[in-house]
Amino acid sequence: MVTHLRLANRVARLGVETAFVVASKAAAFEAEGNTVYPFHLGDLNLTTPENIIDAAYAALRKGKTGYTPNTGIPQLREMLAYDFNKSRGTNFGPENVAIQPGGKPVISKFLLTVMNPGDEVLYPNPGFPIYESQIAFHGGIPVAYTIVQNDDGFTFDIEGLKKSITDKTRVLIVNDLHNPTSAECSEADRKAIAELAVAHNLLVLIDEAYFDVRYEGVSSSIVTEPGMRERSVVLYTFSKKFAMTGWRLGAAIGPLELIEVIGKLNVNDESCTNHFVQYAALEALEGDQKAVRLILARLQKRRDLCVDILNDIRGVHCFRPNATFYLYPDVTVAMENKGFQTYDELLDAVLRNTGVSMCAREHFGTPLSGELRKHVRLAYSGIGRKDIETGLMRLKYFLEA
Amino acid sequence: MVTHLRLANRVARLGVETAFVVASKAAAFEAEGNTVYPFHLGDLNLTTPENIIDAAYAALRKGKTGYTPNTGIPQLREMLAYDFNKSRGTNFGPENVAIQPGGKPVISKFLLTVMNPGDEVLYPNPGFPIYESQIAFHGGIPVAYTIVQNDDGFTFDIEGLKKSITDKTRVLIVNDLHNPTSAECSEADRKAIAELAVAHNLLVLIDEAYFDVRYEGVSSSIVTEPGMRERSVVLYTFSKKFAMTGWRLGAAIGPLELIEVIGKLNVNDESCTNHFVQYAALEALEGDQKAVRLILARLQKRRDLCVDILNDIRGVHCFRPNATFYLYPDVTVAMENKGFQTYDELLDAVLRNTGVSMCAREHFGTPLSGELRKHVRLAYSGIGRKDIETGLMRLKYFLEA
Repeated sequence: MVTHLRLANRVARLGVETAFVVASKAAAFEAEGNTVYPFHLGDLNLTTPENIIDAAYAALRKGKTGYTPNTGIPQLREMLAYDFNKSRGTNFGPENVAIQPGGKPVISKFLLTVMNPGDEVLYPNPGFPIYESQIAFHGGIPVAYTIVQNDDGFTFDIEGLKKSITDKTRVLIVNDLHNPTSAECSEADRKAIAELAVAHNLLVLIDEAYFDVRYEGVSSSIVTEPGMRERSVVLYTFSKKFAMTGWRLGAAIGPLELIEVIGKLNVNDESCTNHFVQYAALEALEGDQKAVRLILARLQKRRDLCVDILNDIRGVHCFRPNATFYLYPDVTVAMENKGFQTYDELLDAVLRNTGVSMCAREHFGTPLSGELRKHVRLAYSGIGRKDIETGLMRLKYFLEA
Repeated sequence: MVTHLRLANRVARLGVETAFVVASKAAAFEAEGNTVYPFHLGDLNLTTPENIIDAAYAALRKGKTGYTPNTGIPQLREMLAYDFNKSRGTNFGPENVAIQPGGKPVISKFLLTVMNPGDEVLYPNPGFPIYESQIAFHGGIPVAYTIVQNDDGFTFDIEGLKKSITDKTRVLIVNDLHNPTSAECSEADRKAIAELAVAHNLLVLIDEAYFDVRYEGVSSSIVTEPGMRERSVVLYTFSKKFAMTGWRLGAAIGPLELIEVIGKLNVNDESCTNHFVQYAALEALEGDQKAVRLILARLQKRRDLCVDILNDIRGVHCFRPNATFYLYPDVTVAMENKGFQTYDELLDAVLRNTGVSMCAREHFGTPLSGELRKHVRLAYSGIGRKDIETGLMRLKYFLEA
């Protein structure tokens, strides 16, 4: 009898990334001696650029092994503010930057800073599942808004967002360059969202994890819209652009009043972020950007290869997004053709028959009522072109058989 | 007007380590061109052993730069369970270990896992200030128990602890080998605390950050007392023993049901701990322990030097603890001799007149009613013997003048 193991009530509201369940199934299938084509995880199979690795080692040799200030070493806060301002057109100073052990900590720290129990928080569905988990875990009420498919790709449902606002809405989470759909706000969308935030006095988390993972065009940040700088915290991460996922390094960037609270949360939660990793990040920002461009070039080739093959599969339609390393193809017809009723049936059959491992719409939130089309999500960050080709050709033969 | 910056109510209950205020004052004094003798922070001025640094670099070169499983790489979980069992006499497996970015995250994650709003949580005062901060921040009611000075050193006030238990008490935090007093549970204390925990069905956080920072005798863990393994999570850290404070690496070790929830919190809060740092930790546990012994030997010499000089100061009395790198001398008479009414007066005058920077009792919680003696805390982890001697001799001349 384990009567003593009385968990806190909030634990029942704690979610996970169900993509890890997909990863476990793939690992089990591989352990049985099968080949797996991994399209399920947003990790990179490209290693971190050499100059960044060398900078970490140099810092280690220089004894950068003790604590740093809670919000990070001053040089990195300053350099990141400079770099961020350059790409966004903002005017943040080092005092607006709190270094974090990853981008993810910004989600929970932001919510703990601004959300009271019972507050309604708008979050994207489909979307990164940690938003909903953390809102509910810390006592907020998650209210979904959605991303819709139209002729040109996916766009934010601004009208739906507007209708979801009540007198209890306090917080809005925006993930522009959106996981899983790669949707991107138009200039009109950014203005509309900012106007809503100002009109309803919302505090805003702007998750820009994929801001720099971009192949064509230029990313714009909603933080530059009127009234947004004072009410928003931007989630910044080194993970994707610099292939540094496993280093765990990111930052919260925003108004001083919020960053000071987030800094106090750093004191409470982990003291500081790894010392020598912060020196490596300085090199990432200041050093030669050739390797970064190479990473993007390789990802772009993968994107094109994936999109071309997917669109060549009968019953599959896939847009070619300009950013992120995710594809969100419509597989409604292919599922009908094969007689699959559920995503589980589809994913299991695809894994067993082709070795292709991928996520589905439902890994990014519970499908909303009225949602008729079926989608899967493929990440091409963790798989090379040769395996992309083999895997997706196997997928084609299976779905068309 | 910043009406939009409406912070969550819990922010008003968020504390910090006020030792950082001491650190700021010391830094400001140093910036004016003065010499500072830093006794205020529990950081180490000894760098991490070379073999650990080299293992981190080797892992970086091998491409260990992507995500790891949320609770850590399997090899490290297994090796840490093995090493922990060896020193504690427990029987934990890898599934009982969740790697963390430091020891500190275990505090908030444990409380979020087991504490409901309104639950009373027993914590040590004087004690590490983050306990009280995190209990209150997440809606619990912090209830202090204390550590008392007697002829042989400092001991846990078991009778006081017993009297503090009510029908709302749900959680107990024990920091054996205690910061700031270096108090250590006797076998009788461990049994008494375990009996209380079992009798009142408490869940227990056992903070053993200083378990291996020990010069004489052998550390024993309260987790081995009857009934404790099933209801306790142990906070483990690599920071102190291996001089790895800035690496941010620790672990939560405990029963599967709690570790699984803590693993889900890892997914939510930071995905995982730095990948190559986990390989360095493997080397720390498995590799040559010569450098670790050298660290301890150096700390022991510092301890003896500090204690000898402190006891040579008129109006100061200091015990010689067997573990931790903190001293908690009684300065009641010295303060009376100098006419200092408050700790602020004492610390400011000492810093300005001698350059010695240290913490006082009140940096470890609000002094309890009935507390008559005055104490300061000196950490000797971040200052070499030459500076210890100069600094404390200056302190002696000042306090005796």
